[in-house]
Amino acid sequence: MKVISENRCFGGVQGVYAHESDATACEMTFGLFLPEEAREGPVPLLWYLSGLTCTHENAMVKAGAQGWAAEQGIALVFPDTSPRGEGVADHDDFDMGQGAGFYVNATEAPWAPHFRMWDYVAEDLPDLLARDFALDMERQAITGHSMGGHGALTLAMTYPERYRSVSAFAPICNPTRGDWGRKQLSAYLGEDEAAWRAHDASLLMAEKGFAGPVLVDQGGDDQFLDLLKPETLFEAAARRRQEGSFRIQKGYDHSYFFVSTFMEEHLGFHAEALYA
Amino acid sequence: MKVISENRCFGGVQGVYAHESDATACEMTFGLFLPEEAREGPVPLLWYLSGLTCTHENAMVKAGAQGWAAEQGIALVFPDTSPRGEGVADHDDFDMGQGAGFYVNATEAPWAPHFRMWDYVAEDLPDLLARDFALDMERQAITGHSMGGHGALTLAMTYPERYRSVSAFAPICNPTRGDWGRKQLSAYLGEDEAAWRAHDASLLMAEKGFAGPVLVDQGGDDQFLDLLKPETLFEAAARRRQEGSFRIQKGYDHSYFFVSTFMEEHLGFHAEALYA
Repeated sequence: MKVISENRCFGGVQGVYAHESDATACEMTFGLFLPEEAREGPVPLLWYLSGLTCTHENAMVKAGAQGWAAEQGIALVFPDTSPRGEGVADHDDFDMGQGAGFYVNATEAPWAPHFRMWDYVAEDLPDLLARDFALDMERQAITGHSMGGHGALTLAMTYPERYRSVSAFAPICNPTRGDWGRKQLSAYLGEDEAAWRAHDASLLMAEKGFAGPVLVDQGGDDQFLDLLKPETLFEAAARRRQEGSFRIQKGYDHSYFFVSTFMEEHLGFHAEALYA
Repeated sequence: MKVISENRCFGGVQGVYAHESDATACEMTFGLFLPEEAREGPVPLLWYLSGLTCTHENAMVKAGAQGWAAEQGIALVFPDTSPRGEGVADHDDFDMGQGAGFYVNATEAPWAPHFRMWDYVAEDLPDLLARDFALDMERQAITGHSMGGHGALTLAMTYPERYRSVSAFAPICNPTRGDWGRKQLSAYLGEDEAAWRAHDASLLMAEKGFAGPVLVDQGGDDQFLDLLKPETLFEAAARRRQEGSFRIQKGYDHSYFFVSTFMEEHLGFHAEALYA
């Protein structure tokens, strides 16, 4: 593991690290915020999965999360959104290829060799974090924005015993039915739509739900509302009587100005579950 | 004035606007955060001047200031750091030319036609803000980072009746004696060092000080400490018995991770003065 940078931040350390990943077969970069308490012993961990076009860096510098994480004594990990590099397949569209991994394990050419972001976030990076940092892996939670909200919700419902709580900012809720989803799932997973079902938060919510609390915030003036389809998730959650809050925030759009506005509440929500 | 963007943010609006400036004779872009209270009537205004290489955008997305400004009902303005555009002089070094206006009115070629950031921040932009937005120009305060901390301190000491309080994050404190200063002041203002004195916070502090409270935070592990020379400002302030806090924050560097960590305290400091 290489240390790219470490900056003192809210009494803790905001680090950026790179490592060779077995899952994606390339070098991966991630951000990790460790609060001051991590000097004394393992602290709980909140995953933050980012959206289309983002790297490990966007949320780390724009989401305003570290201050609230420091207040709660919680670590934050900011993984990248795809494999990257010269030997890695890419696409001219901003919503395909590098920066747009969609948190799946690709099975189709040319993506299959590197685009295994599901395994990266579910197995590879957790192994490294558990080994090299003062993190209490018995206390994990997960959140994300847009494509990252989709990743957070699908991972949480697939591993309900791993994450104590899940939240999302403007998540892609029903990718098997929208243009942010059908295009990528068919490219990465092939035309058999049965394989897509495990990566659709609304379908997973209808099928099994989540064992812990769920918090979803969606801006009412989000320019991508038609692609995100929060209505399918809200409906599925209500039908299942899923414990959680599903909120439309009037006037807010899809930007980090929206994310940062509600970050304090999301950190508080996860802290309650992590320290229960 | 052109509206570039407006995003809902902490109950208010984070806007970005562009306008033709008389001072710099080119189009200038600035960010303005208006808290919710501005819908009802004029609110106090805190200026945030940015550092080398920054545009209006860096602090707007990375300093984490809007949440605290919203809590205090204070507007924030984020000016650019220099004139820009095709007809504007530039330099290959990152610390000269575009992105490095140093908040002076240049008198030397090739800078004189556009590099008039002092007048831009002291006259041009305030006129526009007073005219077009719900701002109480009787209640202004000013802060900044690095080169912007230098601008904030020199403007505040020059216009003590305009700004009720001044703060700075890692300001350039003694530019007439350091490499961040001598190079630029000689290029922009010429070789006569007498003209430089009005742009040196330590000299101004020794000469006249500031009528209101001053807050300065400096990271103890700042990679640019030798260029910033906080010791000269701290000494001059102590000699003058200047009301204020002059702090070294152990372990912090020059980044926005440092700025965002202490932003809450700076907003609270200014709010106290603005609402006194």
